[in-house]
Amino acid sequence: MSPFHEVYRENVLKPDYRFARQHLAEHFLNAMTAHVLTVKRLDDAAVQAHQADIDKLLAAIAALRAEPLPEYDAEIPDLYFSFNKKLEAQLGQDSVSFLRLGLSRNDLDMTVYKMRTRDLLLIIIEHLCKLRQALLRQAEEHLETILIAYTHHQPGQPTTVAHYLAAIDNVLARHLTQLFNAYRHLNTCPLGAAALAGSSHALDRHYTARQLGFDAPVSNTYDAVASSDWQVEFVGVMQNIALTLSRFVNDLIIWSSQGLYVLPDGLVQGSSIMPQKRNPVALEHARTRFSRTLGSSQMVLYSSHNISYADLNDFGPDIQGALISLFIQLDGGLALLTTSLEDGWFDREKLAKQAACTDTTATELADVLTRQYDLSFQEAHRLAGELVKSLCKKGKALQETTVDDLLALGGPKFDEDILRAALDPDTFVRRRNGFGGPAPEVVRKHLTHAAQALDKNLVRLKQLKTTLTEAQQNLQAPGKERV
Amino acid sequence: MSPFHEVYRENVLKPDYRFARQHLAEHFLNAMTAHVLTVKRLDDAAVQAHQADIDKLLAAIAALRAEPLPEYDAEIPDLYFSFNKKLEAQLGQDSVSFLRLGLSRNDLDMTVYKMRTRDLLLIIIEHLCKLRQALLRQAEEHLETILIAYTHHQPGQPTTVAHYLAAIDNVLARHLTQLFNAYRHLNTCPLGAAALAGSSHALDRHYTARQLGFDAPVSNTYDAVASSDWQVEFVGVMQNIALTLSRFVNDLIIWSSQGLYVLPDGLVQGSSIMPQKRNPVALEHARTRFSRTLGSSQMVLYSSHNISYADLNDFGPDIQGALISLFIQLDGGLALLTTSLEDGWFDREKLAKQAACTDTTATELADVLTRQYDLSFQEAHRLAGELVKSLCKKGKALQETTVDDLLALGGPKFDEDILRAALDPDTFVRRRNGFGGPAPEVVRKHLTHAAQALDKNLVRLKQLKTTLTEAQQNLQAPGKERV
Amino acid sequence: MSPFHEVYRENVLKPDYRFARQHLAEHFLNAMTAHVLTVKRLDDAAVQAHQADIDKLLAAIAALRAEPLPEYDAEIPDLYFSFNKKLEAQLGQDSVSFLRLGLSRNDLDMTVYKMRTRDLLLIIIEHLCKLRQALLRQAEEHLETILIAYTHHQPGQPTTVAHYLAAIDNVLARHLTQLFNAYRHLNTCPLGAAALAGSSHALDRHYTARQLGFDAPVSNTYDAVASSDWQVEFVGVMQNIALTLSRFVNDLIIWSSQGLYVLPDGLVQGSSIMPQKRNPVALEHARTRFSRTLGSSQMVLYSSHNISYADLNDFGPDIQGALISLFIQLDGGLALLTTSLEDGWFDREKLAKQAACTDTTATELADVLTRQYDLSFQEAHRLAGELVKSLCKKGKALQETTVDDLLALGGPKFDEDILRAALDPDTFVRRRNGFGGPAPEVVRKHLTHAAQALDKNLVRLKQLKTTLTEAQQNLQAPGKERV
Amino acid sequence: MSPFHEVYRENVLKPDYRFARQHLAEHFLNAMTAHVLTVKRLDDAAVQAHQADIDKLLAAIAALRAEPLPEYDAEIPDLYFSFNKKLEAQLGQDSVSFLRLGLSRNDLDMTVYKMRTRDLLLIIIEHLCKLRQALLRQAEEHLETILIAYTHHQPGQPTTVAHYLAAIDNVLARHLTQLFNAYRHLNTCPLGAAALAGSSHALDRHYTARQLGFDAPVSNTYDAVASSDWQVEFVGVMQNIALTLSRFVNDLIIWSSQGLYVLPDGLVQGSSIMPQKRNPVALEHARTRFSRTLGSSQMVLYSSHNISYADLNDFGPDIQGALISLFIQLDGGLALLTTSLEDGWFDREKLAKQAACTDTTATELADVLTRQYDLSFQEAHRLAGELVKSLCKKGKALQETTVDDLLALGGPKFDEDILRAALDPDTFVRRRNGFGGPAPEVVRKHLTHAAQALDKNLVRLKQLKTTLTEAQQNLQAPGKERV
Repeated sequence: MSPFHEVYRENVLKPDYRFARQHLAEHFLNAMTAHVLTVKRLDDAAVQAHQADIDKLLAAIAALRAEPLPEYDAEIPDLYFSFNKKLEAQLGQDSVSFLRLGLSRNDLDMTVYKMRTRDLLLIIIEHLCKLRQALLRQAEEHLETILIAYTHHQPGQPTTVAHYLAAIDNVLARHLTQLFNAYRHLNTCPLGAAALAGSSHALDRHYTARQLGFDAPVSNTYDAVASSDWQVEFVGVMQNIALTLSRFVNDLIIWSSQGLYVLPDGLVQGSSIMPQKRNPVALEHARTRFSRTLGSSQMVLYSSHNISYADLNDFGPDIQGALISLFIQLDGGLALLTTSLEDGWFDREKLAKQAACTDTTATELADVLTRQYDLSFQEAHRLAGELVKSLCKKGKALQETTVDDLLALGGPKFDEDILRAALDPDTFVRRRNGFGGPAPEVVRKHLTHAAQALDKNLVRLKQLKTTLTEAQQNLQAPGKERV
Repeated sequence: MSPFHEVYRENVLKPDYRFARQHLAEHFLNAMTAHVLTVKRLDDAAVQAHQADIDKLLAAIAALRAEPLPEYDAEIPDLYFSFNKKLEAQLGQDSVSFLRLGLSRNDLDMTVYKMRTRDLLLIIIEHLCKLRQALLRQAEEHLETILIAYTHHQPGQPTTVAHYLAAIDNVLARHLTQLFNAYRHLNTCPLGAAALAGSSHALDRHYTARQLGFDAPVSNTYDAVASSDWQVEFVGVMQNIALTLSRFVNDLIIWSSQGLYVLPDGLVQGSSIMPQKRNPVALEHARTRFSRTLGSSQMVLYSSHNISYADLNDFGPDIQGALISLFIQLDGGLALLTTSLEDGWFDREKLAKQAACTDTTATELADVLTRQYDLSFQEAHRLAGELVKSLCKKGKALQETTVDDLLALGGPKFDEDILRAALDPDTFVRRRNGFGGPAPEVVRKHLTHAAQALDKNLVRLKQLKTTLTEAQQNLQAPGKERV
Repeated sequence: MSPFHEVYRENVLKPDYRFARQHLAEHFLNAMTAHVLTVKRLDDAAVQAHQADIDKLLAAIAALRAEPLPEYDAEIPDLYFSFNKKLEAQLGQDSVSFLRLGLSRNDLDMTVYKMRTRDLLLIIIEHLCKLRQALLRQAEEHLETILIAYTHHQPGQPTTVAHYLAAIDNVLARHLTQLFNAYRHLNTCPLGAAALAGSSHALDRHYTARQLGFDAPVSNTYDAVASSDWQVEFVGVMQNIALTLSRFVNDLIIWSSQGLYVLPDGLVQGSSIMPQKRNPVALEHARTRFSRTLGSSQMVLYSSHNISYADLNDFGPDIQGALISLFIQLDGGLALLTTSLEDGWFDREKLAKQAACTDTTATELADVLTRQYDLSFQEAHRLAGELVKSLCKKGKALQETTVDDLLALGGPKFDEDILRAALDPDTFVRRRNGFGGPAPEVVRKHLTHAAQALDKNLVRLKQLKTTLTEAQQNLQAPGKERV
Repeated sequence: MSPFHEVYRENVLKPDYRFARQHLAEHFLNAMTAHVLTVKRLDDAAVQAHQADIDKLLAAIAALRAEPLPEYDAEIPDLYFSFNKKLEAQLGQDSVSFLRLGLSRNDLDMTVYKMRTRDLLLIIIEHLCKLRQALLRQAEEHLETILIAYTHHQPGQPTTVAHYLAAIDNVLARHLTQLFNAYRHLNTCPLGAAALAGSSHALDRHYTARQLGFDAPVSNTYDAVASSDWQVEFVGVMQNIALTLSRFVNDLIIWSSQGLYVLPDGLVQGSSIMPQKRNPVALEHARTRFSRTLGSSQMVLYSSHNISYADLNDFGPDIQGALISLFIQLDGGLALLTTSLEDGWFDREKLAKQAACTDTTATELADVLTRQYDLSFQEAHRLAGELVKSLCKKGKALQETTVDDLLALGGPKFDEDILRAALDPDTFVRRRNGFGGPAPEVVRKHLTHAAQALDKNLVRLKQLKTTLTEAQQNLQAPGKERV
């Protein structure tokens, strides 16, 4: 008979068990192995006398990896005790004692959660790098493609598609730094902290940490089990990425609405009633993934709010599902967005058509009036503004301005070539060649730097993954652990 | 007559003006000065011909610092144009042209907002350091004061007040790193980006950045004006700190509720109806400051959500008030909490009384049974559990256990000294002397390291502040700018 | 071959399909049936000519209910088209035309989502009623059990357990009203709105609404498909309930921490390392359920933020999972809390012990000084305050005050009986017999009213459920629909 | 000398005092008056003997209304005690005793907060009604103006401006109901609850409630002071309104971006650098007001989260500022949006041009094929889709379709008139004349109903305001109170 109330089992133990079984089982086995390896090296007489038993225990844990994971059992509280039960059935209680000794679910769970979360961090890093690659590739193709940048929802100034994409890439580069920083903050090992005060057994926590690919043990055992800042930092970076991407995808959706950006067939959907429809659903669903990421993050924040420092449950077992679901949202959004960038395309013709009929070179006209015709900036700005208005009344675009139009408003007599150049979007962009500007050669240089920085990130990612893979391999083959 | 609708003035322009006047005026003057200094160095004929006018303009901007800030004026849209109006009235439009040239409110505003936010970051860094100092001081006084740590809201294990406080300090040390990282991400200069595409005037953006104490100009001009990630990172760290402190203050409130932590008279309040009351109001109000910080952060996140990349208004002028109010909440909470720690005290007598009557050394009894009497951990754990239950029925505490009590439950015959030591909270703590544990000598060493790390943070803070102060001084005295 | 990109399928179509299959299938079949029944009544020649075909279609839809739901199929976009495919395979395209005609996924989906959400509302109403029953039962048992109410985390005044529980019940009664209001707002039918502009086929939307148990059709077809306020209202009530319960469960946890409230064995858990532990886990997990409800709610709010009115995807298919997960959290918390109240108990002895040794009757002492000894309230309040302080120095509790203690502080000479009564918690409570006060006879009357109001709510709930059940039964048996 | 620590004064008492002085002073005087009036009717000998003194006290409180409010005073904790101090200085302690008796800041504050919040509710109700009036007026002008409704960011179907606006109005009508419901839930009076257990003085709480315009006293004194659900309900409705309006304003911004909706000069702003700009700033700032409303709401929710039921501070004094700032945001957004609707206009010419060149009547073409040419819906839908594609390749719009185009794709031979009608947006709309559809006569009827329902809301609002005004007038003139 179960020692637990049915309501408690149905609402807590069973769903938690299933969650741990699906998402955490391997990490549990790794952490258990690392702990037993540490126990094995204790100077205690009892431990020294039972080295063979401990080896058998290690082998039994290793064997669990190959077996199907145990189904939920109403008599035990969680996956860890389910493993214990299997081991005890096989080896007897005395041998399994070397697993239990100096170990609490507090430090074990927290270790497992951190291992799981660092996996998620590495996946997000990898996928963000992939998105940057897609961005840089698109940017390289559109170094000279004019894009009319809107500000305040009105046509603002010409820039290039590459300049826009490089700006987004710049933000993602900062997000990568934040992700690596979050990884470093997270990657310290709780094991050996036991319930919170450590153990009176002289466990070598540095050794344990090394086995599991952590940089070091957490330097205070209470901190090791009770702090939730690592997950809040994780969430903070996810929020930041989600907001950047929600803004980027919003532009892609608007451009898609105007036919400036086009998705291939596999990423659009028709309508059940409107025969003409070609909906950019990949982008739309990406957008909601980012909204959900932002919402999910609040689950994590609320769970750490107004609780005692030693309340481990709220941000421990009860919030891991929210962390994973937040990750799934963001990662799904990343996948949809990256695919949309890899397989979609900017429509050069429509972009060119848009560039040809806006008034967005008025800024340069004012600049030229200041620089070459000696007007004060204020006067130049006023004159250009009036010109736009007067042309608008005549139904003409700014690019159709004649020398006479300017004279009629009391402006200087322009040289025809100077006027045409001042009103040309390509020239507008080429002249903006200061540091960070949209001129093609400036952006080309920027993209080269960005690609180099991205390569360094990929190298760093590979190093982190190798460390974890090696640790994992050693733990799977008892006797091969690092010393 | 105002060109703006009354509803627009009352709901937007007037409150925004007052906000800028109160919080941003000096930063506007600094950024304007840096821009004019940059314009002055342009190779343009017009600029070279008017060096004296430009110097007069610089002097006039410098003079504005000493004058009372202009009151709200219904005819102008904002503080920047209010300064312009004053300057034009004094110098005429032509001179002021050298301020307007190549400058947009987009890059100017964003520069000012970043300068303001880095000030806030430095204040929070400073106050967090102060809180850590108070924590470390309290910790040093209580290296041996036993604290019964609760887990799951039940007495768990003995540790020390110092061990607990050192754990909190550990988290705050990580928060300091996050704050310094946020500073570095933020501290690049938007100026010269103009509307978003830079200027066709060859402005030296590296020079401008240096004048204002930035590490570098933002390396893409669209990124310079359109990215909100720096404020979302700021908010992410504030959330993290608020959650850590909400958990810490919650413990202080609980301890205060039980008389274990005591506030001095100036930080408590009585009741208007209950004569006996002495309410720990400083801690209570600190708690709500952290709740409000968390809530405020959502204003910033919502403002950057589902908007276009070029929508600068949402996270620009319209959200600066929220950033400042979020800062005020967190900083107020920090002040209340730091004062409560500086002036309050742990009641050693009551803590000792609490330590004497709990069952929290049961873990060590089980450890001793495993280590010295050769029981398996499971057996030892079961026996200790039964002992607590049987004593409870007799109304006895665990520390009153006799050798016979254990024998009666089928346990081993204990040596009296071993039993007493196993049940003693001080011994419990002293034996937990592994890395990160609560044993006084371990925590003492930890505190020394923490103090050294904190000192390094203070040195770094000082450097950052010096850079800003020097930049500010140079800008106030035209002609003394850095080259 | 699938017409959809693999990334789109894996991240959107497949998980959405599984979700719809698990949570929405029956509602889809109901709505499809109601639509075909409405089409059948069209005056069109084509429709009138194919009545038999339409009846076959209805029978085929009814038959789908008995069959296993189709597995995910990479060639179709969603569950609705999966049903279509099956029906077409069986009946041919012409017959199924009467399902497609005038129907859009926009109105169909929204109808299904509303039907699903009203189910959730009814479950929450039912479970909240159950919690109120448990509360009222506990309250009735403790009409005279003194509870020391804390304010500002310090002992405040005596009240009774019943008075406290009746207060919580009062809030829940208001929540029930909010739930019924949300039901009424939600319960209008979108079907017939088609994409958003209705259909040129003369569908009788009132008839359709009636078939599905809705109160009426939505009175504007754009509103029918594009408004998300009904789900935001649902979320608003969930937030409110979660906050009320988070505060209530927090008190139960504190009382449990002090042994004043006790959970039975099936609702507590031990520790893997601390043998003495008995953790009130049912309450702890209830608390996080409420935190998660609050966080989840942000997913729903973000999804409706800064989108166009016609963006149906964000708050439609993409947010239904969040609504259900929010429901699961709140409902799980309700179950854990209700069980904890049904099976747990207040420890009368410990409550009495706590009541005996606090200073919380000081308010009444001041009241008596004002009422019977003619002191001003301020003077009485000051004197009672000084008395508490002076007794505290002597280590005495307020209830041990002697007549001389008061004289010594310059107070009046008390009659011994009056003094004892003024200091007695039971008397304190009995004297507070004004409207809403804790005096047992007042609370008893209040509980009777509450029980009657609750009964009315249960009757209303039953009516709503009956309406839905009857509609459902009619739709399952074609030919028996209501006219 | 101040009894309060400087840090506590600067961070808590001083800002709270200023807030109360600015926002709550009148309500404090009202509640104090109502309490003294209630005390005056006590049957106590002391009270009966001092009726004249009580009248003097009432007169003195009334006189405070005419005096300047006292400045912050470091010796007193809050505004209430500041009033007390003034009254005692004038009348002596004995007279003021009749104010203090049976009164706690707990019930006094909560009463004041509720009175303030119900004012805010009435203002929002009034301004929402005003927005609806502007909506209905615009709708009436555009019953026949075709609007191409986008779904999934692509042109979907023709509807009318009026149909769209009527949909938004429908949602606002539901929000008004929610606001009235929130008012009813809130409008019960806490006074007489004292600290939480009521008073042993027989205060007539029904009488007090009546004086202050409340519907009734709260029926449990603990509930009266400790429940925060009324403010969470307020916040829930604000969130809902903010989301609806964020979606509506988003459409206006998009239309404004395309020139379909135009703002007058007073509601747009130019650029400091781009001469051609005319930015729809009133709409942009409205949008951020709604974002900030949503963010602010989290301050209120966090403040009630994971606190004890008797923790009145968190959602009491410490959160009122957040409630007001949330109100200011929403109300500012309402003002900007309403003005934009009152003074802006839809550009009929541009809307017509847009209607002429989309493919959005394809749905009707399919409907006609089904209804009049006997195709199955699926076949009709497929044919219309292919037609759009083939025309698109030829650079032709759907409205240019010829009878031959359809024949070429294997479609039926259309009658020319039937074809033209099927492709005409006006006809599309006129044919959709079912319940809730866009056909002008249907929307006209809907608008009439909406206007009538709105009038009823305005009557109800006026009644609520009259009740409060009368109560207020009676309290200002002592001796005229209601019995």
